[in-house]
Amino acid sequence: MKLKFKNVEGSITAPKGYQAAGVFCDIKRLGTGKGSQKGKKRDLALIVSEVPATVAGMFTTNQVCAAPVKVCLERMKKGVARAVVVNSGNANACTGKQGMTDAREMVAFTEQALALPKGSVLVGSTGRIGVVMPMDNVRAGILEAGVYLGSTPEHSANAVEAIMTSDTKPKQIAIEFRLGAQTVRMGGMCKGAGMIQPGMSPTGVRPATLPHGGLHATMLGFITTDAAIDPKLLQTALNQAVAHSFNRITVDGDMSTNDTVLVLANGLACNPELKAESPGLAVFQNALTYVCLELAKMIVRDGEGVHRVVTVRVQGAKTVQDADAAARAVANSALVKTSWHGGDPNWGRIIDAIGYSAAKVVEEKVDIGYSAPGGKKILWSLRRGQPTHATFKELCQAVSPNEFELHIRLNLGEAGAVMYAADLTEKYVDFNKGDVTDPTTLGG
Amino acid sequence: MKLKFKNVEGSITAPKGYQAAGVFCDIKRLGTGKGSQKGKKRDLALIVSEVPATVAGMFTTNQVCAAPVKVCLERMKKGVARAVVVNSGNANACTGKQGMTDAREMVAFTEQALALPKGSVLVGSTGRIGVVMPMDNVRAGILEAGVYLGSTPEHSANAVEAIMTSDTKPKQIAIEFRLGAQTVRMGGMCKGAGMIQPGMSPTGVRPATLPHGGLHATMLGFITTDAAIDPKLLQTALNQAVAHSFNRITVDGDMSTNDTVLVLANGLACNPELKAESPGLAVFQNALTYVCLELAKMIVRDGEGVHRVVTVRVQGAKTVQDADAAARAVANSALVKTSWHGGDPNWGRIIDAIGYSAAKVVEEKVDIGYSAPGGKKILWSLRRGQPTHATFKELCQAVSPNEFELHIRLNLGEAGAVMYAADLTEKYVDFNKGDVTDPTTLGG
Repeated sequence: MKLKFKNVEGSITAPKGYQAAGVFCDIKRLGTGKGSQKGKKRDLALIVSEVPATVAGMFTTNQVCAAPVKVCLERMKKGVARAVVVNSGNANACTGKQGMTDAREMVAFTEQALALPKGSVLVGSTGRIGVVMPMDNVRAGILEAGVYLGSTPEHSANAVEAIMTSDTKPKQIAIEFRLGAQTVRMGGMCKGAGMIQPGMSPTGVRPATLPHGGLHATMLGFITTDAAIDPKLLQTALNQAVAHSFNRITVDGDMSTNDTVLVLANGLACNPELKAESPGLAVFQNALTYVCLELAKMIVRDGEGVHRVVTVRVQGAKTVQDADAAARAVANSALVKTSWHGGDPNWGRIIDAIGYSAAKVVEEKVDIGYSAPGGKKILWSLRRGQPTHATFKELCQAVSPNEFELHIRLNLGEAGAVMYAADLTEKYVDFNKGDVTDPTTLGG
Repeated sequence: MKLKFKNVEGSITAPKGYQAAGVFCDIKRLGTGKGSQKGKKRDLALIVSEVPATVAGMFTTNQVCAAPVKVCLERMKKGVARAVVVNSGNANACTGKQGMTDAREMVAFTEQALALPKGSVLVGSTGRIGVVMPMDNVRAGILEAGVYLGSTPEHSANAVEAIMTSDTKPKQIAIEFRLGAQTVRMGGMCKGAGMIQPGMSPTGVRPATLPHGGLHATMLGFITTDAAIDPKLLQTALNQAVAHSFNRITVDGDMSTNDTVLVLANGLACNPELKAESPGLAVFQNALTYVCLELAKMIVRDGEGVHRVVTVRVQGAKTVQDADAAARAVANSALVKTSWHGGDPNWGRIIDAIGYSAAKVVEEKVDIGYSAPGGKKILWSLRRGQPTHATFKELCQAVSPNEFELHIRLNLGEAGAVMYAADLTEKYVDFNKGDVTDPTTLGG
């Protein structure tokens, strides 16, 4: 992808006309009281556009889907929104009718607090599953966040902090690019860490081509831009961008009940609205894909216990479905992932995983090799199913960096797929086994 | 299943007319020389029937399939065999033409050494992938094993030891039952540990109903009986038995290149040969299923790093495929497996995994509960999608034993499936990441 844009400071408030806030309102109810407190991780965020914004979304295809996702799906039909309210610490998933009541109250209360039109607020939640939302705390948080709204990088940083769960790092980006005579900006923030193998669609319904097996901690992504774009084209652009980014990552293969990506486009850059025939549409698509992919890679790098990040590139498959199946089998194989952790260039486990995947595979045709990220020079460990003369030491060196690319060529056709994957470490196991004597450590 | 049989001492040599041996011939080539040595784990086994035996087999459906599996598939057409030669330490997988030559030489050399007819020996291998067989050592081992053949429990114990890889315990069983007037025996041994989610079929070709995703260390199983049975019925009985046992287990979700189960029936119990209309056929089927299931459970209990074993029972699915998909999603979810390790009764992760599986699921209908193994009393944590009044402490107690059952009711139909699953521990990760400074620790 040829980049026609530059990085700028901040994230979701970098484009014109957006405000954000992040506050602590004790959604996990740790017994430390309500309202923001010094030193407590923020847990409620607001993102507000000063004018109505065109909106598009992608939502988990998990059949067990959280109340905030259902509320968003109801509201997406309008295609326009003013704000998003997001909390961490509670997923509001598997909470039945009460969960739907609470999610609806979150948007209605935000509309009231910010004097926004009915139906103009969207909602996202992440955290424990099966616990009813502490609505007193949520209401207090929304009121307080409304007071602290602003457009500085500090404001967006507070919002980023508020959506983090097991994330150890904030994940944000902002870029600037030209659409004809106008300068346009796009900002994004997201969270991930565990239960990460999103498979999102615009309707929350799984198309035949989406994988069934997924990972699980929730991922949430929020993107803002001041570009003006036709609502349908915005959704199409987001579908494309997510297909090549968030839907291509896996930390642990579990797909969450809450995965959500929203993009708001408020048009304040005053470019002529992007239409199907606009030359700027391709630029916008590239920008959106770039923002989504950078955010998606941040999720993998900061996945629970992750030590190594591996880009799995499958080429030469008979079909795209085959390429995807082979890439996901490798990216989610416990044995492959532990070998990555150990710095072991174990091609036996890789070809084994390809072999049991749903992809058509012929052992005698498979190539397996390694390169640096984006590297053109591939060190092959296997060619046409046979070990090469690469030494064990050379192969160990190829898989020793924190990030590398794994190249798999099936040599049966023309289709390809890529997955951004993580290793499996003792730290992941230790973190996720939790501590039943301290149930607050137990994740959703 | 109503048991009409009793356990007896030994394993594969407990039935009439079988001999076995297990020797050390340094197949991993650790530099300690050839031939058996005191204190070295045996790595080559022979199982011999004194008379021609009817034979049936099940083989990995991994498209990348090892040479010994291919040789067995060629030889299964005869339906009769005299012996099996098995080695550990080298899988003879992804070894190309040399691998096929070596596997063919293993059977031919065994036939020669034991003066058996051509085409009467089968072969199994397990160990590292992609390393050429050390045939000098293998030949020496076959010759030596031929000398040490015998029928005592010690002989079969030596054979069991010889097929172990990362197994920490030998896995064997023998039973005795009546077929009409005759007393019949059946014995079995197997190995497992890692790369364990077998999906085997009689032809090595994957039927539509077999899962694509599997686990991986190799499992090998060898069963002997002195019953007389029609060859086609023996294969049908084995298909049934494996479908309810070895194909229902998972340690880490990886399906091996070498998974093999063979059953030999030499007829020396002198029962009238079992035919389709024989009343004894159901007894034989029960016996074979029991032996396979007991062996399969031993594999899960002794899986790499395994601390807890969980029987996942899905009921009320719309179709058997749905029940299987839901059970496998739960049994292979990294987050569910780490919660089992932590003793955390985390139903959120369970319903999440069901929700992203290929099974049709309605959140508001799902029940999730726990019982002791075989227990009738289920402690429900979720009923119709809603948490019950069971306390966290009660639920923690239910998931604290080393073995328990997880009951999932989808309440959408009548179909069910069971999976015998394991937790995911730091020990599994540590074991499988290996040590690249000592490549002998790196598994296949």
